[in-house]
Amino acid sequence: MIRVGVNGYGTIGKRVADAVAAQPDMTLVGVTKASPDYGVEAAARRGYDLYAAVEDRVEDFAAAGVDLSGILGDLLDAVDVVVDCAPSGVGERNAPVYEAHDTPAIFQGGEDAAVAEASFNARGRFEAARGADAVRVVSCNTTALSRLLAPLDETYGVEKARVTLVRRGGDPSETDRGPINDIVPDPAAVPSHHGPDVNEILPDLPVDTAALKAPVTGMHTHSVNVTLESDPDSGAVRDLLADEDRIFLVPEAAGIDGAGALKEYAADAGRPRGDLWENCVWEESISVTGRDLYLFQNVHQEADVVPENVDAIRAMTTDVDAAESVARTNETLGVGL
Amino acid sequence: MIRVGVNGYGTIGKRVADAVAAQPDMTLVGVTKASPDYGVEAAARRGYDLYAAVEDRVEDFAAAGVDLSGILGDLLDAVDVVVDCAPSGVGERNAPVYEAHDTPAIFQGGEDAAVAEASFNARGRFEAARGADAVRVVSCNTTALSRLLAPLDETYGVEKARVTLVRRGGDPSETDRGPINDIVPDPAAVPSHHGPDVNEILPDLPVDTAALKAPVTGMHTHSVNVTLESDPDSGAVRDLLADEDRIFLVPEAAGIDGAGALKEYAADAGRPRGDLWENCVWEESISVTGRDLYLFQNVHQEADVVPENVDAIRAMTTDVDAAESVARTNETLGVGL
Amino acid sequence: MIRVGVNGYGTIGKRVADAVAAQPDMTLVGVTKASPDYGVEAAARRGYDLYAAVEDRVEDFAAAGVDLSGILGDLLDAVDVVVDCAPSGVGERNAPVYEAHDTPAIFQGGEDAAVAEASFNARGRFEAARGADAVRVVSCNTTALSRLLAPLDETYGVEKARVTLVRRGGDPSETDRGPINDIVPDPAAVPSHHGPDVNEILPDLPVDTAALKAPVTGMHTHSVNVTLESDPDSGAVRDLLADEDRIFLVPEAAGIDGAGALKEYAADAGRPRGDLWENCVWEESISVTGRDLYLFQNVHQEADVVPENVDAIRAMTTDVDAAESVARTNETLGVGL
Amino acid sequence: MIRVGVNGYGTIGKRVADAVAAQPDMTLVGVTKASPDYGVEAAARRGYDLYAAVEDRVEDFAAAGVDLSGILGDLLDAVDVVVDCAPSGVGERNAPVYEAHDTPAIFQGGEDAAVAEASFNARGRFEAARGADAVRVVSCNTTALSRLLAPLDETYGVEKARVTLVRRGGDPSETDRGPINDIVPDPAAVPSHHGPDVNEILPDLPVDTAALKAPVTGMHTHSVNVTLESDPDSGAVRDLLADEDRIFLVPEAAGIDGAGALKEYAADAGRPRGDLWENCVWEESISVTGRDLYLFQNVHQEADVVPENVDAIRAMTTDVDAAESVARTNETLGVGL
Ligand SMILES: NC(=O)c1ccc[n+]([C@@H]2O[C@H](COP(=O)([O-])OP(=O)(O)OC[C@H]3O[C@@H](n4cnc5c(N)ncnc54)[C@H](O)[C@@H]3O)[C@@H](O)[C@H]2O)c1
Ligand SMILES: NC(=O)c1ccc[n+]([C@@H]2O[C@H](COP(=O)([O-])OP(=O)(O)OC[C@H]3O[C@@H](n4cnc5c(N)ncnc54)[C@H](O)[C@@H]3O)[C@@H](O)[C@H]2O)c1
Ligand SMILES: NC(=O)c1ccc[n+]([C@@H]2O[C@H](COP(=O)([O-])OP(=O)(O)OC[C@H]3O[C@@H](n4cnc5c(N)ncnc54)[C@H](O)[C@@H]3O)[C@@H](O)[C@H]2O)c1
Ligand SMILES: NC(=O)c1ccc[n+]([C@@H]2O[C@H](COP(=O)([O-])OP(=O)(O)OC[C@H]3O[C@@H](n4cnc5c(N)ncnc54)[C@H](O)[C@@H]3O)[C@@H](O)[C@H]2O)c1
Repeated sequence: MIRVGVNGYGTIGKRVADAVAAQPDMTLVGVTKASPDYGVEAAARRGYDLYAAVEDRVEDFAAAGVDLSGILGDLLDAVDVVVDCAPSGVGERNAPVYEAHDTPAIFQGGEDAAVAEASFNARGRFEAARGADAVRVVSCNTTALSRLLAPLDETYGVEKARVTLVRRGGDPSETDRGPINDIVPDPAAVPSHHGPDVNEILPDLPVDTAALKAPVTGMHTHSVNVTLESDPDSGAVRDLLADEDRIFLVPEAAGIDGAGALKEYAADAGRPRGDLWENCVWEESISVTGRDLYLFQNVHQEADVVPENVDAIRAMTTDVDAAESVARTNETLGVGL
Repeated sequence: MIRVGVNGYGTIGKRVADAVAAQPDMTLVGVTKASPDYGVEAAARRGYDLYAAVEDRVEDFAAAGVDLSGILGDLLDAVDVVVDCAPSGVGERNAPVYEAHDTPAIFQGGEDAAVAEASFNARGRFEAARGADAVRVVSCNTTALSRLLAPLDETYGVEKARVTLVRRGGDPSETDRGPINDIVPDPAAVPSHHGPDVNEILPDLPVDTAALKAPVTGMHTHSVNVTLESDPDSGAVRDLLADEDRIFLVPEAAGIDGAGALKEYAADAGRPRGDLWENCVWEESISVTGRDLYLFQNVHQEADVVPENVDAIRAMTTDVDAAESVARTNETLGVGL
Repeated sequence: MIRVGVNGYGTIGKRVADAVAAQPDMTLVGVTKASPDYGVEAAARRGYDLYAAVEDRVEDFAAAGVDLSGILGDLLDAVDVVVDCAPSGVGERNAPVYEAHDTPAIFQGGEDAAVAEASFNARGRFEAARGADAVRVVSCNTTALSRLLAPLDETYGVEKARVTLVRRGGDPSETDRGPINDIVPDPAAVPSHHGPDVNEILPDLPVDTAALKAPVTGMHTHSVNVTLESDPDSGAVRDLLADEDRIFLVPEAAGIDGAGALKEYAADAGRPRGDLWENCVWEESISVTGRDLYLFQNVHQEADVVPENVDAIRAMTTDVDAAESVARTNETLGVGL
Repeated sequence: MIRVGVNGYGTIGKRVADAVAAQPDMTLVGVTKASPDYGVEAAARRGYDLYAAVEDRVEDFAAAGVDLSGILGDLLDAVDVVVDCAPSGVGERNAPVYEAHDTPAIFQGGEDAAVAEASFNARGRFEAARGADAVRVVSCNTTALSRLLAPLDETYGVEKARVTLVRRGGDPSETDRGPINDIVPDPAAVPSHHGPDVNEILPDLPVDTAALKAPVTGMHTHSVNVTLESDPDSGAVRDLLADEDRIFLVPEAAGIDGAGALKEYAADAGRPRGDLWENCVWEESISVTGRDLYLFQNVHQEADVVPENVDAIRAMTTDVDAAESVARTNETLGVGL
């Protein structure tokens, strides 16, 4: 049994904790929280042991009548690996603590690549994490791009990928993020940093990205162009993508027209939190003219990195191979629509 | 066993079907769909028999490879009661069909009160539906107002209620509804029709409503003022509301600040579709000055009428009393946070 | 000639500067900017002398090739009165500087009332500013409420006003403000601070307010209830409000249905920046039942305080009376639709 | 003097009317309205003669106390050219009426190309309209793409252009258009019809477009990639675009970060209605890597076609050449920021 701790029980941390708890070869030792807000109740409902992320807030938990199993350090000493799900940038500040406790750590995509020895994606870069002490699961956008581009590159060769990322402004529970009535070039400079981040996973793949921020909370939307090295027909590309475990082809006949309907589809399917762990590629959009492939994909920013974190745990702590790990993760979570 | 059919498997129909299927004293005979879109898959996953809502679209289902158990008429002949969940205004056109098949029917709040013998809310008006052939479960807004005002009136007396309804512009999967960057007086005339609709449930309660439409999809927000006939303190009102089964007091300490966080709270609690069947009254907002009570409540438009439909079925077809029906519904669904 | 400086050339400052420049009895000596962004060009186009708001950023202006006429202190020494239009809370930090230069100052509604000797509204509280050294023009919401409630109180007596403020989340150019898809109780506690702020203008008027924040940028919307001390009919109230200079009754027949159309109406009328200096009361919404008056009003947050600032300048520095000042301001700006 | 009528006084019609009225070589004979809403007042303020667009609604105008100068037919008989600004699709129904009156007509981009002999853009296709009886000014998106691609093609050669159009969901005054919290692939199929529409102006230019619809009202945002036939540096492209009359390079140093700030910039510049007639290309985004040019441009959908309509009038009715017409239009309107 791999003993796992989750440091930071927010949007990503909650989901990673549930996913870890669902693995037969893993034990969720506990999760940390920075303050005793409603997340505490979620952890308690699930029977997760709770630790204080920040020592000097222990009092706050006591005042709120919340029982703690200890503080972060106690959790770190009890686990084989910690998954850092603290806010963007805080992971880097936590890194020395993990080192001090000699606890291997997984970081999220909000951190710089330099925080870890290796960037991770199960499809494209599983072995890089093998036995590492610090691994970074790349961001929701990079994860989705890697999943899409890897099979295209393997099968047809990618001469150049060009992607416009229309990113969600904030997550559904974040009321202080905008924009309200604007599409913001963010960053204004093109290409954006997302392309180089894809190259942490697929080093030699030429990819340029341009990023916008939009007043939506549900999903990112990617408008993708890939100039291939050969000229398959649209149907062949559709079949290739349909074969990928973590890509869901949104069926043209389903009458799904946006992120809202996609989330409803996930909820219809009984997904916890309505999560879509898969890239959602709009079948109708897939089109090849000459060697130019076009398509739209939607990415559920809160969910797509979750199975990747599970696989990263196995890559770091076991000798299970990529295919086996991915298969286990998919089966236990129910990935694949 | 009460045999139930659901006519119209959309936002409300899906939820009513699931709720009926969860009742030990009911059998969901089947659901109808108007076209073979992604809802068909949801029904199939759950093993619900599917009927064509509209006879001349039977071909479309065949073309899509979807098996039908029959058409609406077949379903009507096989059930004790049908729950009409067709789009607003279509229920009225369906009414003669139900009559022709001698099938008692429950309509939704999108229909005029005149469509049915009685308007229904389990808290305030259960007996009105007893043995009726046609009952209308009042709208999401009216349901929420009735649940809130009934106990206030019983306990303190309501001299006058004044409510501003900030309504969601559309449901999450409706991409063609607005507004985008506007708050629209809708209707522009005050008081709006929502007050009279409350009086279908609580006939003598003086209530004036003013309605706005806002660019959100998650929940309605009600800003409530009630001039009471006595002057309880805020704590007493809080306790009164806390005792109500279908009211959830959003705890001040929980750090929940809007509909997004409320929905996350529901998802944390494992609610299917993240549904909030309860009125969500913001504890911190409850305040009495003199005889004037103020509070905010949020209403999950897709969900709050669902337990009411279940109770309406029992009121029409059995002699189970209100308390017993509500208790059963609450327990089977898990109402109460 | 009253010599006026504007400290802070943002949303409010730009408009106050233009309004001052339009007054025959005032001279706009100059405006300050904190940094050399696009506002500099606006000032230059209009021929406004530019001063650095913050001394140690003088270099930035030089680097950007922008000529300065001096720094804030120079401006303060050259004027009879400074209008502080710095960001909310910064005004308070500027106050000692104004005092050190012996320059009478007008602050905006983002500051606490304590920043100044008197809170100001031309309709309800002109004389309070007479000869004062520090005056605060109340916020956009308070200004609009004061304009509405003053005539109602004078004519019918106000027993109690209850207002729900559905506030815009941010101004059109603020891309970092939310919420995106939420209506946020803000503050969650009711009554909000807006009522007491109205009492800075109308001290004895009983008013309770409840405030929400919505994903719109155009205008605030107020849902107003006033229990009057007498029972006029709706038409009489309409006539009363129609007579007020700074209230615009949105005509029922005009087909204007929200803030977007209102702003288009203002642009059609040739208003600079599409500004609506008036409260926009929806004629169709005005309704009296018993002694309960209801109505909706929209408030252009960027504009309604602008004529008030002009009047505050006169109240502080001259002996022109309220009616005369308001008339001059209205005529020069073109207030009244 | 060219006598001009405008049929349909809505978003585009109002602006075209004002632009025509500003031309020394044109007379605005009148505008039509379909109903006596607030637009009537706008026309009256400007002294524009008003005609009824639809004969059987003449009574409505009388009832509203609005004086008419006649009906559409009267206007058609009095002009040299009519600019059809009726809602999308209605222009096609109006075409036979124009023919019956022998009145040359200009249609807008909401109509199919087949409605007219020629599609028009002043930059790329002025002569096509010379002497024609029916001309279509291409849509806001196509106009902006043509303006951008024409100089790139002339100077460097365009091997292939690929553009993602993030379109505004509705105009600011349209409260019934969505989406609210979604980015909708619209059309879901890629490439979209916008590319072929560009080819009505630039017939041989290879361009693929993918279109999304977003919850914003202010502007469209284009994410542009152009594979050039040569490899200029970014600065050269910037200079090329800076030289174009109807392209505004949003200066990097200006601190403008989205459509809201762009519109404020336009209002600061005194633009009527805050209109941006120019493509707004984000200077900071312009980047060439190899032969791949990237940039973002924003398009004010309500405004960019306005100067094109003015030029189309001249092309159809005079022998003024393109350069001269564009220069006159630009000067009279003040195009160029
Ligand atoms: N939300 C997304 O869309 C998304 C997607 C992929 C990756 N990520 C990345 O995942 C990470 C977590 O993001 P999130 O969206 O879950 O953030 P979040 O704000 O939802 O959750 C962060 C949690 O960490 C807690 N926390 C605060 N300080 C802490 C500390 N010092 N130590 C431990 N925990 C602390 C917070 O209380 C909160 O519960 C970030 O790196 C982010 O960039 C986020
Ligand atoms: N959505 C809400 O927020 C909400 C809340 C409370 C009450 N209601 C009311 O519930 C009713 C249903 O609303 P909804 O939001 O579920 O609508 P919906 O559009 O989500 O679902 C309606 C369903 O009925 C189907 N349908 C269409 N024509 C039909 C016909 N002739 N016969 C049977 N089915 C047909 C549609 O295909 C769709 O699946 C309306 O009266 C509405 O006013 C809706
Ligand atoms: N925007 C509104 O809706 C609104 C309405 C009514 C009142 N107000 C109040 O008006 C005041 C100004 O608000 P705003 O919306 O114009 O803000 P803003 O951010 O648009 O403008 C503030 C300006 O002040 C400048 N500035 C920053 N630091 C400064 C300093 N130290 N000294 C001088 N200037 C400085 C900024 O660069 C900016 O140009 C606030 O008190 C606000 O609460 C705003
Ligand atoms: N709004 C934009 O962003 C935009 C941009 C470029 C092109 N266009 C095109 O311009 C045209 C007009 O669009 P709009 O946005 O101005 O529409 P709009 O709805 O704002 O205005 C249309 C006007 O036409 C009037 N009208 C209705 N029926 C009429 C009839 N039978 N005859 C004459 N007038 C009638 C309406 O009352 C309204 O005033 C459409 O083809 C549209 O596709 C619009």
